[in-house]
Amino acid sequence: MSKFLSKDYLSIKPYVPGEQPKIDSLIKLNTNESPFPPSNKAIEEATKVLNKLNLYPDPECTELRKTFASKLTNNLTEKNIIVGNGSDEILYLAFMSFKDNGFVFCDITYGFYGVYAKISGAKYKEIPLKKDYTIDIESLINSKENIVIANPNAPTGIAISLKEIERIVSSNRNRLVIVDEAYVDFGADSAINLVEQYDNLLIVQTFSKSRSLAGARVGFGIANEEIIKDLNLYKYSLNPYNINKISLALACGVINDEEYTQGNISTIITTREYTVEALKNLGFDCLNSKSNFIFVKNDKISGFELYTKLRQRKILVRYFDKDRLREYVRITIGSKNQMEKLIEETKNILEELK
Amino acid sequence: MSKFLSKDYLSIKPYVPGEQPKIDSLIKLNTNESPFPPSNKAIEEATKVLNKLNLYPDPECTELRKTFASKLTNNLTEKNIIVGNGSDEILYLAFMSFKDNGFVFCDITYGFYGVYAKISGAKYKEIPLKKDYTIDIESLINSKENIVIANPNAPTGIAISLKEIERIVSSNRNRLVIVDEAYVDFGADSAINLVEQYDNLLIVQTFSKSRSLAGARVGFGIANEEIIKDLNLYKYSLNPYNINKISLALACGVINDEEYTQGNISTIITTREYTVEALKNLGFDCLNSKSNFIFVKNDKISGFELYTKLRQRKILVRYFDKDRLREYVRITIGSKNQMEKLIEETKNILEELK
Repeated sequence: MSKFLSKDYLSIKPYVPGEQPKIDSLIKLNTNESPFPPSNKAIEEATKVLNKLNLYPDPECTELRKTFASKLTNNLTEKNIIVGNGSDEILYLAFMSFKDNGFVFCDITYGFYGVYAKISGAKYKEIPLKKDYTIDIESLINSKENIVIANPNAPTGIAISLKEIERIVSSNRNRLVIVDEAYVDFGADSAINLVEQYDNLLIVQTFSKSRSLAGARVGFGIANEEIIKDLNLYKYSLNPYNINKISLALACGVINDEEYTQGNISTIITTREYTVEALKNLGFDCLNSKSNFIFVKNDKISGFELYTKLRQRKILVRYFDKDRLREYVRITIGSKNQMEKLIEETKNILEELK
Repeated sequence: MSKFLSKDYLSIKPYVPGEQPKIDSLIKLNTNESPFPPSNKAIEEATKVLNKLNLYPDPECTELRKTFASKLTNNLTEKNIIVGNGSDEILYLAFMSFKDNGFVFCDITYGFYGVYAKISGAKYKEIPLKKDYTIDIESLINSKENIVIANPNAPTGIAISLKEIERIVSSNRNRLVIVDEAYVDFGADSAINLVEQYDNLLIVQTFSKSRSLAGARVGFGIANEEIIKDLNLYKYSLNPYNINKISLALACGVINDEEYTQGNISTIITTREYTVEALKNLGFDCLNSKSNFIFVKNDKISGFELYTKLRQRKILVRYFDKDRLREYVRITIGSKNQMEKLIEETKNILEELK
């Protein structure tokens, strides 16, 4: 550290993203990416702008916001939408903008919430997940703090119902409820239609998972117009041109190729159910995932041991060195072939233990 | 504004970027973009990654940092380099990370410094430019605050010498000196070679101007390793995947096509001198620009009137509604054709005043 670093950050422990190793023929199931390339329509749109990159992108992302809004089945318009450099940026803007009431989130959830809370200087509280790894909804009713929920939650993959979301939102009209729907497309219900009715709800979505654009960095915030204005106040004080021109074009292309996205989602769900079934047959406990990943454990092997032995076999899954998570590994749902290989190698690892 | 917005931001006035209007056949000379498309080599590199965007980019930007370092003529390595989502992000990270000592910068300079200082909560001080719009170097010697200098400065275009930079840096060993070199390639001297010697110097560069990548958002911070570590601490607490995969590929491609860049720079400098000469013949005062823009005034017409009349003729330049700037307009150096059109229309406007 230099002698110039602000004292405010001396105790900050930044988020550690999943590894992006360069190992030949690695099966990468550690950061919940899609096994499918982006839509061809999106790639076509991107190709058109490559020789225009000498010009700045539209800081308001008007076309993308309009395109996004046009596909919604409610009365929301582009005024209810902000685009982020990944959904992480939307989350960061929200933690900074709305820090005064502090935040509450689960003790087991996306690791970045704690980092954002700390760096914003906000007070925050962590609510323990219940014994079965579900969210303790009662503890979020009439909250003193703004609420942040990942639905489905990570790394558990467990979703809560739209009714439960609405109960939380309607009981906290003077607190902001942020619902991070990064994985919502894989089987959970989006709360996006509640935005019309509730001015204290911010939905966060991403094109990194079901839309195969992790490498392009596109996320969205959807909320009441005033919330969006607040987020823009901070965005225009941080980085007005936050989304590059190619990613804007890609995201518009993806929205206009919904059939491709829905096909991929459906394949991933089928592959997930296949993988869960196979792992259960090998003696695994699998939490009830509505995501493109599963969180699994086997009494015969610790999470770290399974992670390590899979890595030796060039299969990368994610292990979390944290209380209540050490028995588990999180496995991204890749292609059918990748999952067959995972199952085969897992079987080999278990047999070697005998 | 929503009822949730933090009180800290109630008085923030965000930066207002130059217009990005959609007017057919507009000559856009308002945001200092390059008139040349990006390097073909860069476009080729970008095309190769488009179908791999389902995977996250390398958060450490290792290949780009190594490529950047390999072209430097000093002993700096990738450890001295951080990549930003445009140089704005590097500046933001720096203002947040090093806020404790406060900041000092010129009263007439890049408008974002004041916004960043405010949003970071830092104390800051503005030093008036001298009567001739040059920087008052003496006022920056033995400073109480961290120093931020744009070299060349904006919107004046005036540069200070490497000797003057070194005087400032060496007299402030306990304060950080940030030199924003967004426009350095158009005739000023970079201070990048001083980084080896001084642990209190942060150079900020961008690929948005001379490298024709404004639409891709790529900026760099170059400094002592400890400064870079501090900036990374904040980066990894904000958005680890801040640079998308396509922009990483584009930037590597641009670095490996330096001949194209140098040719464009040389053309822009020639066009700038041609434009200055022609405007002087029309009675303009032109500050001594070492940038890809010029800052000019004519006693016969106010800055706002010239800006407005040029806009009616589909030529967009930038006007600043601020003390000491109202007589001027800032004109980006575009292609020779664009500048001929600008000169012709300016002549017409002046003649109509008679």
